[in-house]
This record gives sequence, C-alpha cells and structure tokens, in this order.
Amino acid sequence: MKYFEDFRVGDVERFGCYRMTKDEVVEFATRFDPQPFHIDEAAGAAHPFFKKLAASGWHTAAATMRMMVDHNEELGVAGLGSPGLEQINWPVPTYPGDVLSVQSEVLEVRQSRSRPEMGFVKSLTTTLNQDGRAVMNFTANVMIAARPKS
Amino acid sequence: MKYFEDFRVGDVERFGCYRMTKDEVVEFATRFDPQPFHIDEAAGAAHPFFKKLAASGWHTAAATMRMMVDHNEELGVAGLGSPGLEQINWPVPTYPGDVLSVQSEVLEVRQSRSRPEMGFVKSLTTTLNQDGRAVMNFTANVMIAARPKS
Repeated sequence: MKYFEDFRVGDVERFGCYRMTKDEVVEFATRFDPQPFHIDEAAGAAHPFFKKLAASGWHTAAATMRMMVDHNEELGVAGLGSPGLEQINWPVPTYPGDVLSVQSEVLEVRQSRSRPEMGFVKSLTTTLNQDGRAVMNFTANVMIAARPKS
Repeated sequence: MKYFEDFRVGDVERFGCYRMTKDEVVEFATRFDPQPFHIDEAAGAAHPFFKKLAASGWHTAAATMRMMVDHNEELGVAGLGSPGLEQINWPVPTYPGDVLSVQSEVLEVRQSRSRPEMGFVKSLTTTLNQDGRAVMNFTANVMIAARPKS
C-alpha cells in the first residue's frame, strides 16, 4: 500500500492510456452535455474554437479520473476522495481519436490536524493528448489514509 | 435566443430536477471512478465522511451539466462552452436517491476584446439536494455568443 507518508513534494508520475472514440464522445455528450458541438460533426465544425466535433470537458475529466483510479489501484494508494479542485482548465479540445495520458505532480502534503489517520495531498494533474499537448489540467486536494500505527 | 447582452450581474436562476438512482451511481463509478466507496455499499459505509455508498463527484458534475444544458436549450442560450472553472467543491456527498437541482448566479459579464461576436459570463453554480444542501458548487467562465448585428 502507498500511504500519505509516502508522498513527497515534487514527485512526478506519468501514466495511463485512454483512447477517446467518436462513439464514446457522442454517447457521453448525448447523456450529460448535449451541446450541439459535442454531438454533431457540422456543429463542431462551425464552433469558433473547436473547428470539429469535440468531447465534453466533463468527459475528458471522467476519462482522466479513470486513469488515475486505475493507476492508484496498481500502486495500492489508500485514497479517500477529494473535497474539491482549486481550478480546472481545458486549454485545448479533446477530439475523437485522441489518445490521452496523465502527468501528476505533488505540490503540497499536509497532515490533517483533526484526523491523524489521514492527510491531504495537493497535486497538479495534467491530461495530455498524443501530441503531448495539455487538453486539461486541474489542481486537486486529495485525502490519503495515513500508515496505520502498528 | 438569449445572447451575451442579456446576462446581468446578480441574475439568479433555479432549475432542474435530476434523480440519482443507485444503479446510475454504480454504473457511472464503475466506468469512470471505480473507487470502492462509489461502487460498494460496505466500502461506502466504512468511509470516514461518506458513511454510505456515495456518487462520484464527477457524476454530480455531469448530472449538473445535463440540467444546465437542458435549461439553456429551453431559454435558447447561445452557449459556446467553457475554457475552465476557477474552483469546484463537493461540500456534502451525493447519495443514491438524491434529487438534485441547480442554482446559478451571474458574477461577472465581460465582452471579449479579441472576438466581438462573443463574451464571457462568470457564474457561481450550486447543485442542491432535496434538503436544500449544496452538494457541489463551481465558478465557471462560459462563452456566450453576442447578439448578431443586423
């Protein structure tokens, strides 16, 4: 298991591989974000920035979360979820066919004062496309269980 | 149609009704956020804050987005998406059986300097459960098309 005490400021990890298919882009957007430029090729082409059908930013976030959870499970990270993000941005669109991966950097580690059994890890998470361009980044505070006292 | 010029600082809207079923909570989390406390009753019960199975925060966000898009479509808002959020928080968990709605307040309106055909509307969006408690809030900058010059 990887506990709170195992995180160090400056640690950088790269992981994940998530292929955004057109079917999945349209399916997610139809259900949760049915703005025309996320579900229709012509509307995507007419958008001033996207220029073609683009994924919902929430879909990019969900795909990134999946890569993070899979990675943490591999490492045995004792994660307890997150109370929130300080910022989230989508600098470049995610398009069907993109292959996404994640880079995560530890910015701060802080023991919980009220709960010694956990701590907070603040990380900058960047989602990259196959060209190495950042399609999303967010700064999250994540709760991680502390190593149990034996 | 509702254009950029129709937004006023201080405008508040309330809308939407989204019932979070247990099946949907588990399905979304299984796909995008398979942390044990989002997919398994016993793991949810053992979580220090959730105390029972709770929805992924990304699911609450996706459900909120769906309510917003439906509302904007009803009003004919000429939305062009968002480059990002200044913050997003989940103060209280979303549980299966919750019925969510949205309150949105306009904080700032700003004409785009480089693109006179659009502007930015900064809003505070709060997702409420059936008890009126805020399960999520975020501050977003949204691009809205300006009224076409005739």
